[in-house]
Amino acid sequence: MPHKTHSPRTTGRVTMPIQEGIDDQIRELVTALGADAVRNSDGTWLPEIASELVDRVYSTYFPARGDQDWALAHPDTLVNQYLMSARVTAMGQGPLTIDVLDGYFREQFVPCYERVERFWEVIDRTSGEVVAPSGWSVDESTGVLTIAEPTPWHEYTVGFLADQVWDTTQMYNYITNGWGETDPTRVKERPYDVRKNGVWEYAQQALREWLEAHPEVDVVRFTTFFYHFTIAFNTHGEEKFVDWFGYSASVSPEAIDAFEAEYGYALRAEDFIDAGYYNNPFRVPSPRFRDWISFQSRFVADKAKRLVDIAHEAGREAMMFLGDNWIGTEPFGEHFPSIGLDAVVGSAGSAATTRLIAEIPGVRYSEVRFLPYFFPDVFNHDGADPVGQANDSWLTSRRAIVRKPLDRMGYGGYVSLALEFPEFIDRITDICQEFRDIHEQSGGELPENAPFAVGILNAWGPLRSWQTHMVAHALWYKAAYSYVGVIEALAGLPFKVRFLSFDEVREQGVPEEVGVLINAGAAGTSYSGGEAWADGRLAEILREWVAAGHGLIGVGEPAAYDKGGSFIQLSDVLGVDRERQLTLNTDRYPTLVEGHVITADLKRASAFDDGEGAGGDVYTVSERTQVLSYDDGTVKIAANEFGAGRAVYFSGLPYSFTNSRTLQRALYWAAGREDLLSRWFTTHPATEVAWYPGRRKMLVTNNAYEAVTTTVLGDGREWQLTLEPMGSAWVDVD
Amino acid sequence: MPHKTHSPRTTGRVTMPIQEGIDDQIRELVTALGADAVRNSDGTWLPEIASELVDRVYSTYFPARGDQDWALAHPDTLVNQYLMSARVTAMGQGPLTIDVLDGYFREQFVPCYERVERFWEVIDRTSGEVVAPSGWSVDESTGVLTIAEPTPWHEYTVGFLADQVWDTTQMYNYITNGWGETDPTRVKERPYDVRKNGVWEYAQQALREWLEAHPEVDVVRFTTFFYHFTIAFNTHGEEKFVDWFGYSASVSPEAIDAFEAEYGYALRAEDFIDAGYYNNPFRVPSPRFRDWISFQSRFVADKAKRLVDIAHEAGREAMMFLGDNWIGTEPFGEHFPSIGLDAVVGSAGSAATTRLIAEIPGVRYSEVRFLPYFFPDVFNHDGADPVGQANDSWLTSRRAIVRKPLDRMGYGGYVSLALEFPEFIDRITDICQEFRDIHEQSGGELPENAPFAVGILNAWGPLRSWQTHMVAHALWYKAAYSYVGVIEALAGLPFKVRFLSFDEVREQGVPEEVGVLINAGAAGTSYSGGEAWADGRLAEILREWVAAGHGLIGVGEPAAYDKGGSFIQLSDVLGVDRERQLTLNTDRYPTLVEGHVITADLKRASAFDDGEGAGGDVYTVSERTQVLSYDDGTVKIAANEFGAGRAVYFSGLPYSFTNSRTLQRALYWAAGREDLLSRWFTTHPATEVAWYPGRRKMLVTNNAYEAVTTTVLGDGREWQLTLEPMGSAWVDVD
Repeated sequence: MPHKTHSPRTTGRVTMPIQEGIDDQIRELVTALGADAVRNSDGTWLPEIASELVDRVYSTYFPARGDQDWALAHPDTLVNQYLMSARVTAMGQGPLTIDVLDGYFREQFVPCYERVERFWEVIDRTSGEVVAPSGWSVDESTGVLTIAEPTPWHEYTVGFLADQVWDTTQMYNYITNGWGETDPTRVKERPYDVRKNGVWEYAQQALREWLEAHPEVDVVRFTTFFYHFTIAFNTHGEEKFVDWFGYSASVSPEAIDAFEAEYGYALRAEDFIDAGYYNNPFRVPSPRFRDWISFQSRFVADKAKRLVDIAHEAGREAMMFLGDNWIGTEPFGEHFPSIGLDAVVGSAGSAATTRLIAEIPGVRYSEVRFLPYFFPDVFNHDGADPVGQANDSWLTSRRAIVRKPLDRMGYGGYVSLALEFPEFIDRITDICQEFRDIHEQSGGELPENAPFAVGILNAWGPLRSWQTHMVAHALWYKAAYSYVGVIEALAGLPFKVRFLSFDEVREQGVPEEVGVLINAGAAGTSYSGGEAWADGRLAEILREWVAAGHGLIGVGEPAAYDKGGSFIQLSDVLGVDRERQLTLNTDRYPTLVEGHVITADLKRASAFDDGEGAGGDVYTVSERTQVLSYDDGTVKIAANEFGAGRAVYFSGLPYSFTNSRTLQRALYWAAGREDLLSRWFTTHPATEVAWYPGRRKMLVTNNAYEAVTTTVLGDGREWQLTLEPMGSAWVDVD
Repeated sequence: MPHKTHSPRTTGRVTMPIQEGIDDQIRELVTALGADAVRNSDGTWLPEIASELVDRVYSTYFPARGDQDWALAHPDTLVNQYLMSARVTAMGQGPLTIDVLDGYFREQFVPCYERVERFWEVIDRTSGEVVAPSGWSVDESTGVLTIAEPTPWHEYTVGFLADQVWDTTQMYNYITNGWGETDPTRVKERPYDVRKNGVWEYAQQALREWLEAHPEVDVVRFTTFFYHFTIAFNTHGEEKFVDWFGYSASVSPEAIDAFEAEYGYALRAEDFIDAGYYNNPFRVPSPRFRDWISFQSRFVADKAKRLVDIAHEAGREAMMFLGDNWIGTEPFGEHFPSIGLDAVVGSAGSAATTRLIAEIPGVRYSEVRFLPYFFPDVFNHDGADPVGQANDSWLTSRRAIVRKPLDRMGYGGYVSLALEFPEFIDRITDICQEFRDIHEQSGGELPENAPFAVGILNAWGPLRSWQTHMVAHALWYKAAYSYVGVIEALAGLPFKVRFLSFDEVREQGVPEEVGVLINAGAAGTSYSGGEAWADGRLAEILREWVAAGHGLIGVGEPAAYDKGGSFIQLSDVLGVDRERQLTLNTDRYPTLVEGHVITADLKRASAFDDGEGAGGDVYTVSERTQVLSYDDGTVKIAANEFGAGRAVYFSGLPYSFTNSRTLQRALYWAAGREDLLSRWFTTHPATEVAWYPGRRKMLVTNNAYEAVTTTVLGDGREWQLTLEPMGSAWVDVD
């Protein structure tokens, strides 16, 4: 290591990736970072020195694809996946043929012909009718299905079961890293399904044997359990469909039969196909799909618990990686704690995902893996910027960590690559120390939150806490970022956040501790609610609740359902509605209210960044509505009083530190607590303060990439501070 | 007149406004413009010299408000209007009071208490239930309605009949012109309803007397007949609601009773209130509302015919102004020709409205009134630009006039004001001549159209020919201009245009002469179709029709209806669908096709101006779809082959000469007639050519405000021309 890094003040809480062949450098780096645990990565092996260096040694373990010899010897155990064929139009009279795999990657899937009349379903999408199995046949040598007498000019689809002949993650890594060229002998791994013939018995035995063979491993890092989230590749070997929450690859004839036996009704292919939406999390979940989630989660938790027990029996800790084959282990689901894991580790893609990991119940500790992963795409000398990526990752996640500290942090990948970048090592040395400081300075105390909780109201409720509007893990999506910003902002704001489902609020009302509810989403999605607003019951409950003195914040197309002359069903509460080119005849005279506390951090109210906006123009429904931001004929922020309560509307809220601050202001205003704007609040929107009343300390953080000067407003006192770029400062309060 | 204007080469076809007291100037101006008719305006009187100056003298005549002494003496004849109260939420237990006129202009309306239990309707908008009349009462001294036992936290509205105590147009002029300050003694005119007590008998007699008293009048310019289009003003005396097509002021107890007697079923208040949408033309019309249009149109046509007969009996012509009290006289309705009018005159707000007037059937001639109106808002010396407005109006309308010449043109207002602007007089002198030249050079021959007709498919069909997406007469609306551009472009393109309703196509298929169909509109509107796409029958018909070799063009959210995994129900034909945040999980790999004939006039394909766009992202549904314009994650233009036919998608098409040309190219491509791109086509998109095969002449026009050089491609020949700004040239072809 040519460059001598500086040393941290304290040690621990850090997991470092290591590999064979560079023992001296690893030893030095363990000291620099203050690491107390090491891990291998996909494709690296633990050196023998591992155990002497640190307290704990982690090793990845793959229960669903770890033994390819076994997989090849048991081809009847392949994991299934439900797929929908392309939509094919009957171009006139006569039989219609559909090559079910057309458009799919044939190295990933082959059709599964087990009881096709039971598990395949042909649907006329123009009429909505199911074609009886007697009306079609499939040629098993080609995968071509023929509908004998289709209705001319109707569109048809086939929902069918496929066998996965290539494991999803390994396929992804194989193709992404070009192993086909660089390592052509590498096996294309096949996944096996723990529900199938002999797999479960084998899985338990294999783990026992592995533990015995690896006494140096202290922590079994399950990567992960049994069912991968949904990914299908297309004809060109590119991603065709991805759903981080997708259960399409958790299916099998065995599972569907078991479901029927237990629930007393049979799931159809269409229950999984969902007209091609595959029950993605933006869809309002059907009761049958919810049953499936519950059924599989229970099964996975039961089996995972038994593997965890085996690890425990061997005196090891069991850690779960939150990703890959994580389906069935949703961490806020009711069965998750029963698995008995010691820990969860996940990747920090955003403040929201970091907060999600921090909040997982039922584990002793949680660990976050920061970016960048030490892979050649970032660690090269062709202009890549590993320091910049480390800064982004830390700055993004720090907001969440301040509010709810993760127990541990780490990095992953090939440490030999990172060692070539001494500035990077310096930077992560500081990050590790700043991470530990949060624990050491706070002494385990959580910073003070507002005296009311914030509720996020959608169809999913607690099950998908901190995971709203996510498509692929923490990736940016154009249509969704304007909503993701809400959760991203909240992940670092001083509020307890509750995730509430429509059903819960219908049945039990809004929990006592909640002061402001947020409904954010596009019309017809699970997040806005769609049919949940049809019968008016939710509107009644929320009107009464707001009028009693609470707050409501709507973002985009909240409570949207076309009924009775309104589109936003709480337009009376929010004071606005969404134009659908049905009310252009109504004149509008918006009057901008200047100098409102909600918009105080915006340079110009009209310049509020609402991202993609609400999907159409928004207008006020009454002269009482206060328009706080208006631009190009549409309302972007509005405030409205309703009874003794208040409501705020945002047409979108992509994350930025200014928008996060604007949301914080709106939450205080909606709760009728503008007084909080001078209690542990900072004047510069790039800065935030966390107040630890028990320790009489505050932590002030700078979310900007440049130095800023800010004033902290405490309880009647003020402190002026200048913070370095991305800096933070602990201040003792006498 | 200080400035000597130049003289026209020919005379006639021009109507000029005149007034008393400036006889010499009028005489000179009649010569300059070549006018052969004169008219008065609202607030001006015809000078005695009128008849000697020109062939024909027009005078306005107001059958529904002309005699205010009579109106005041007969207060039981006031015109009614259906209004909906504000939406009022029951804020808890106990009676709910609604001041029905809250938000309305009390100088315009008073409640009409005739049989309130029959004509008023109280609706719980949260549950959708009607509150029985026994459940509410109204205090006639205050107009406050009380619902005895509302459901707490539900929203309620009252649909009620009002009396109009101030005529709509006169109120508008009175307030707009500030007559309250400048002429406080001026009477606020009251309208009377020809269905009510004695009005009809009076109206006939009054017209007879007026004709007798005004022998100098050759043409009775009815302004207009009986029922005004809908306008309601708000508390502040500003426009609250406007619907150029609105029938809300065509109602009365008498009419509704007569309807029930004839149709055998009773219309409810809600049939007119329509949840507050008031059946505006963007709404898919209900069968009951269609019945009402038919009922009132028949009544109005019958009565109007009798007034026209009286004019004819007195040896005068009858002309209708297309505006103001025009409800019931929709010119493409089945009863319009039976009125027996000699002529219609209307204002040229756009090429589409000009074309609309030109296409009106059942009259001997039609006249277009160009802008600007000679009013002080434009004719002042404070920087107003009357010449610019005259240019805009002419340039806009000329495109339509070239394709379908109006018989006559004219101007309106106070001619004394215009005479102060000699450059303006010069400019309109030229415009009058250019207008006449079209008639004289073409010799009455229409220019050649493409060998196939274009069909516009929506819920209204022929009834609203050339009037799609119109809110207030030809005014620009943000949400709608992206669709208005389609009709605006077509008004000046070389195509016969047919307006087809969904019902017509369902029952009779697409007419033989139609080569390309266009469906353009926002989801759920009458223009896109909404429920028309629910049962799949239309989709079947259009798929078969396109596949047989025809063309389909979809704009915005065509054929939009949420069903079977598609939103655009013809996504297989158009090759695209609209994202609703339900298919973000699907990866998209759009590949831009460069150099397509459709986009040949765009500087950069991504820079295509789609106005407001489709209301959300648009994606391709198949790799076969050709993406012709793509920007910021959304498809803006796509082309697709379907069977032997073709389809083109535009996410929006606001009018510009480039977009008009792009539509023309798309129409040729969709019809499989790219050969037409070199037959009577120009190379510069600002220019257009009209070809008169019988005369062996062509007219080349320049739609740009600067000079352009263009090449006309004729049948295998080429002509290069340089045209002046806004210029035109007639070219003889040997």
